Amino acid sequence: MRTDIEINEFERVDDLHRNGYKIIQDPKRFCFGVDAVLLSGFARVKKGECVLDLGTGTGIIPILLAAKTEGTHFAGLEIQEESVEMARRSVALNELEGKITIHHGDIKEVGSIFPKHPFDVVTSNPPYMNEGGGLVNSFDAKAIARHEVLCSLEDVILGAEKVLQRGGRFYMIHRPHRLTDIMVLMRQYKLEPKRVRFVHPFQDKAPTMVLVEGVKGGNPMIKVEPPLIIYSEAGKYTQEAYDIYYGEGQA
Amino acid sequence: MRTDIEINEFERVDDLHRNGYKIIQDPKRFCFGVDAVLLSGFARVKKGECVLDLGTGTGIIPILLAAKTEGTHFAGLEIQEESVEMARRSVALNELEGKITIHHGDIKEVGSIFPKHPFDVVTSNPPYMNEGGGLVNSFDAKAIARHEVLCSLEDVILGAEKVLQRGGRFYMIHRPHRLTDIMVLMRQYKLEPKRVRFVHPFQDKAPTMVLVEGVKGGNPMIKVEPPLIIYSEAGKYTQEAYDIYYGEGQA
Repeated sequence: MRTDIEINEFERVDDLHRNGYKIIQDPKRFCFGVDAVLLSGFARVKKGECVLDLGTGTGIIPILLAAKTEGTHFAGLEIQEESVEMARRSVALNELEGKITIHHGDIKEVGSIFPKHPFDVVTSNPPYMNEGGGLVNSFDAKAIARHEVLCSLEDVILGAEKVLQRGGRFYMIHRPHRLTDIMVLMRQYKLEPKRVRFVHPFQDKAPTMVLVEGVKGGNPMIKVEPPLIIYSEAGKYTQEAYDIYYGEGQA
Repeated sequence: MRTDIEINEFERVDDLHRNGYKIIQDPKRFCFGVDAVLLSGFARVKKGECVLDLGTGTGIIPILLAAKTEGTHFAGLEIQEESVEMARRSVALNELEGKITIHHGDIKEVGSIFPKHPFDVVTSNPPYMNEGGGLVNSFDAKAIARHEVLCSLEDVILGAEKVLQRGGRFYMIHRPHRLTDIMVLMRQYKLEPKRVRFVHPFQDKAPTMVLVEGVKGGNPMIKVEPPLIIYSEAGKYTQEAYDIYYGEGQA
């Protein structure tokens, strides 16, 4: 790990429990959550594949996928300039400049930023709160990361379709109450849902997150996987959740 | 229970564990399965409501709902004449002629059989196997009940929409691999999916069935419920599954 990377006053450097990789975060802005870790465990990246993460924030997903998979290259696209700059410092901190590139740009422009469908895999942990109600400050970094201020679910799915090769795979984590929207939009934009997994805090609770895999041009037939349970009792991870957080290799 | 109802040579009379109700079935034709019981536990029928079951077969769902709910009237529509006749005998056997009527007809004609959207609730346990492969004998009663020979998923959803009042509820049990088709068609025909529950044989297994509630003209927002687990160990029902099968009142 390099030691000459600047860390600003309000930032902190967190260990990712993978390959010794670390990430620079600013708690005043946005820190990655369980979503990113679960998505990096759900996404399948094969040897030699190229991956794009839409709305990459601090670069957490490319860095985790670089640690967990044998993909060749990981790109991240982020609209917030400060996040782009932080993500680039994290990439440098982990000496991953040869594997990860962070691009500054808008998901709505992704087809012109990356023309000719160059990606095998697209991932995204998009803002998951629908607009409406006017409670959101659209200049706030946390709000932009969490609410559909600058990009809608449709923008993310349409963007993924634009840059994926035929047969390429799209992985997203989102909220279960949007399940119908997710499936309708994915079919509409030819990213057929092929695999879905619900994430439940406890075995007898409703899911709080949903992981989805779509295949560009895939046939209509989806596999709903066993529930992913996070806690076996209060404060105690299930073995599977523990392995996704701390285990070796790809979950 | 009446004792003057004719039971044919190959038929049997099974106890439904509800109100002492029984059902006439012919194992050579089709016997109800766990699907029907689960659907009758998932469907919410309020006091005074009128219900239609599409593709009712031997009338199992109207009979179970008449036992479990305070609905006023339960109609069943069935295309196979022999099933209609058996269902009517089961209704008479349980002295339910005042509450249940079995109609002979095609789901594709449901809008003209029941004009003016008379129902508060529609239920269906439709054939769940897609066509294709030519392995199905379309004159076989089991095949008609299980495969999309005489009616497709789209026919069922479109039919439900035609006879439901605005705000009326549609309940269906189907197979998880059709989840995208179900959601896309329900939204297309304005039966917005509002509640979904996956049925898993064991806690750590993929679901084998899915229960869905749609509301005619409902807003897009779905609740994914906790998993419904059938067995806690081989041969032993979970408490919840036991209650749905044998418990008192509506599950």
